[in-house]
Amino acid sequence: MTHFTSQDLESMPQRYRVNFINSLSGFKSANLVGTVSAQAETNLAIISSVFHIGASPALIGFISRPPSGGRHTLSNILENKHYTLNHVHNGIIDAAHQTSARYERKKSEFRATGLSEYWIPGFRAPFVEESYIRIGIKYREHHTLLNNTVLVIGEILHIEVPEQYLHDDGLIDIEQAHSVALSGLDTYHDTRKLKRLSYAKPDQSLTVIPPKDGLMK
Amino acid sequence: MTHFTSQDLESMPQRYRVNFINSLSGFKSANLVGTVSAQAETNLAIISSVFHIGASPALIGFISRPPSGGRHTLSNILENKHYTLNHVHNGIIDAAHQTSARYERKKSEFRATGLSEYWIPGFRAPFVEESYIRIGIKYREHHTLLNNTVLVIGEILHIEVPEQYLHDDGLIDIEQAHSVALSGLDTYHDTRKLKRLSYAKPDQSLTVIPPKDGLMK
Repeated sequence: MTHFTSQDLESMPQRYRVNFINSLSGFKSANLVGTVSAQAETNLAIISSVFHIGASPALIGFISRPPSGGRHTLSNILENKHYTLNHVHNGIIDAAHQTSARYERKKSEFRATGLSEYWIPGFRAPFVEESYIRIGIKYREHHTLLNNTVLVIGEILHIEVPEQYLHDDGLIDIEQAHSVALSGLDTYHDTRKLKRLSYAKPDQSLTVIPPKDGLMK
Repeated sequence: MTHFTSQDLESMPQRYRVNFINSLSGFKSANLVGTVSAQAETNLAIISSVFHIGASPALIGFISRPPSGGRHTLSNILENKHYTLNHVHNGIIDAAHQTSARYERKKSEFRATGLSEYWIPGFRAPFVEESYIRIGIKYREHHTLLNNTVLVIGEILHIEVPEQYLHDDGLIDIEQAHSVALSGLDTYHDTRKLKRLSYAKPDQSLTVIPPKDGLMK
């Protein structure tokens, strides 16, 4: 084992340190956040910090990191109160990654990357048509954190998912849907299911939940 | 595509809804958070909500979900101001999952699951000896969110990682270290690297970062 201290972190070259620290949290989700400005300019940005907050009400959060591309995303959300999250799958990795380039505000990342806007009537943010798992969210609150990044929390209003990825107990098989995982800043992975484990109780052995509780179709 | 609305969510049976909503954020990290109480009772809990907040200073966050097992974790952190995060790898999945059982406070999840405590002198929280990637963290701030879950943010003081998983540009190869990804509440996955992509710029094509910038050893 190599041991690093906070002093070692401070002496690392900046790019090395960014790669190193970004690896530490573990695997990350890969989502595209879709928004639109009051001037009807759409925006699309890849984010790796989406996380579950609660099921009832259905709340989901992500970290916005101004002054990078997150700037347009956050201001659009605060203007319109609606945004979308769209899973990155293995067929759209390059286009998704390209959304992280610093385009001018008037240049939509949809046009720049070739991804397609998809709208639900009455919902004020664009979905990504190519995504298999799409979520429409209403802004609820945000918190400014000690390093001036912003935690944005929203409530889920719409979900679109292909029926064949939905298990009969509510689980969505995001591996079968080819959703990818991220590590560090820029490395994309697909996954292989190892096992699904039963609810843990003290003094009781775990069991593997068998595939019979699997896909409906 | 099947379309669900917030009304559909409300009418789902509770267990179905929990599985469904927990699947939506995408793949999650799997970490064990280690703490100790003022009475020297150690605690270990699996969490799936660890995420990167910033590299300079090196900040990392997670969501604590009282009144589940997260209760002891959060009170220990607020008492001692130190905690550890330890990656779950494919050799310790069952023990890690078992820490989610509701043990009484005086029963350490280390003893209950057979995972081993590992201490760094002067640091007031136990690491997991079996983990390959271990992080020692100092509490910095917390935020109570609208559903009464708590975002805990800390600064990284110690990192231990096997040298052979460290790339020469700072990336830690968490796939080679067998760190696992989680989906939903209870499904564990390993990963296969698809590609590492270059920094994106407007009007410039992405390139795949070749393995030559790979492991040092």
